[in-house]
Amino acid sequence: MLGEFARIARFFRPLSLGFAGAWGLRDDAACCTPPPGMDLLVTTDAMVAGVHFLADDPPQTIARRLLRSNWSDLAAMGASPFAYTLVTALPLAISDAWLAAFAQALAEDQQRFGGHLVGGDSVQSPHGLSFSITALGLVPAGQALRRTVSKGLPAYAIYVSGTIGDATLGLALRLGEKSLGLAPEDEAFLLARHTAPTPRLALGAALRGVALAAIDISDGLLADIGHIATESGLEAVLFANAIPLSPPAQKYLAANPAALPDLVSGGEDYELAFVIDPAAADLLAQAVQQSGEKVTKIGVLQQGTPGAVRLLDAQHQPIPLQKTGWTHF
Amino acid sequence: MLGEFARIARFFRPLSLGFAGAWGLRDDAACCTPPPGMDLLVTTDAMVAGVHFLADDPPQTIARRLLRSNWSDLAAMGASPFAYTLVTALPLAISDAWLAAFAQALAEDQQRFGGHLVGGDSVQSPHGLSFSITALGLVPAGQALRRTVSKGLPAYAIYVSGTIGDATLGLALRLGEKSLGLAPEDEAFLLARHTAPTPRLALGAALRGVALAAIDISDGLLADIGHIATESGLEAVLFANAIPLSPPAQKYLAANPAALPDLVSGGEDYELAFVIDPAAADLLAQAVQQSGEKVTKIGVLQQGTPGAVRLLDAQHQPIPLQKTGWTHF
Repeated sequence: MLGEFARIARFFRPLSLGFAGAWGLRDDAACCTPPPGMDLLVTTDAMVAGVHFLADDPPQTIARRLLRSNWSDLAAMGASPFAYTLVTALPLAISDAWLAAFAQALAEDQQRFGGHLVGGDSVQSPHGLSFSITALGLVPAGQALRRTVSKGLPAYAIYVSGTIGDATLGLALRLGEKSLGLAPEDEAFLLARHTAPTPRLALGAALRGVALAAIDISDGLLADIGHIATESGLEAVLFANAIPLSPPAQKYLAANPAALPDLVSGGEDYELAFVIDPAAADLLAQAVQQSGEKVTKIGVLQQGTPGAVRLLDAQHQPIPLQKTGWTHF
Repeated sequence: MLGEFARIARFFRPLSLGFAGAWGLRDDAACCTPPPGMDLLVTTDAMVAGVHFLADDPPQTIARRLLRSNWSDLAAMGASPFAYTLVTALPLAISDAWLAAFAQALAEDQQRFGGHLVGGDSVQSPHGLSFSITALGLVPAGQALRRTVSKGLPAYAIYVSGTIGDATLGLALRLGEKSLGLAPEDEAFLLARHTAPTPRLALGAALRGVALAAIDISDGLLADIGHIATESGLEAVLFANAIPLSPPAQKYLAANPAALPDLVSGGEDYELAFVIDPAAADLLAQAVQQSGEKVTKIGVLQQGTPGAVRLLDAQHQPIPLQKTGWTHF
């Protein structure tokens, strides 16, 4: 097994190439000054074995979920990936081959989404794997999308990108808790939505100047819209029939009609939920078309109980919810 | 026990007050754009129970060592504290009182050294405590101190701040591995040098434009000077008699003459080691006086075996070294 410095040189230094201020990971800190006219955004996400992933998950899966969950936070702010630092806390049993695969997945994601590794720490962890990334993003000065609506309209339209609940079903498959009874290709789709979520970076960028508030769905659709509602002092009403589901999730729901609350409460969709002035629907349509993403109107944000989130069925009757938040396994 | 969001609101949000871009820790990311004319530096350090600290260390000690080790990296670059994100990975058994004491120590250090908490992640950790901080610092554009000397002189003078080896003796006391046989006040001094190191921020700032390279001593004096030697393709020669020791460490060494290699190899002094053009000694003296710190010339960096570090005794004979690096317990 290579030592700490040799591992950094072999596996991590290549991830810093192309970012001058990383100084080849050879210094005490990296220089990450944003270009003129840009704001620098900073977010941190951690993952612990047995809580956020399984210790025997493939290194590629861990790497992708870790980096993409951070990029998703940047997408929610309308920012683009710039740089990141990485903490790896590894048991001695982790091999160089494991680490090589982990680094290779990061390299592929840097190629696909942008950003470079600029620093970090590599520590021994006697009791299990854990990781964290601090991601730095760039956004034109003053244009970061926030969570709080403060425009003072009587009501706002709530939208969501992509489809909801796939990652929850994919996690259930990964945990082997239940067979979903779907075709293999449908189950493969759902599993991939869990193992390789897509940060909606192009959409986030397109929403600058259009969305009045945005958040990425990491805690679950209801919980994250609850965050916008809480911070804005408003109430959210969501229409269950409007919530976009993928064809595999639709098939699962058709066979398990009581599963809807689980799908809209489960975490780690990494879609964007956002709020617009209803009068800006045309502007939104243009922006979304540019981004190549798909969005769906799912409800309204309005005066009411601050922070409340209500889910209504086709008859506009409330659907009982046992939980609105997502607890990691 | 408070839930995650309540803990953030109670213990961590107060640490963000006064930093507008932290947005009260309520958003997906913080805005940390440096002021015009300043470079932004980024560094990350992690600490794991049983490796970097003991699980029953007081929360104040853990907080101080964590934050100050990151500020020390900034000091080595000549930067000043700006902001930081914090990952706490906590077993369920950690109480709110523990967390309150941890946050209080961070608050005191923010007051003393500067910087604000601007974000992070608070995750459950079934197997033990771990923490990481990503620290952001500011330095006038282009003036960050690097590790690499590239001026092309035949020889450079190597200096170090403060005193060396105290933290190693303090750690030995903390581990209870041995009685050092010193007076209680001397042992208290050494223990405090381990539990509450002082990042040399004023000195680092004063060294901008004076030092040709700098590093903070986290891996151990010999190992960290070895980093400068390696990156610069030069050889370091250190004079054991010149290495500054505190009065308690001097007393210990007098009773244990064979302990010198341990003191100069032990980690976490968090002093600064740096290199100057010998012709700049007067400039250095002025800069150091401004900073209120103490520095000592301990050797030379010169042509020779790249990366080698030699420790010479009073007769200029090499002192045998079993290890030059520091391995965490």
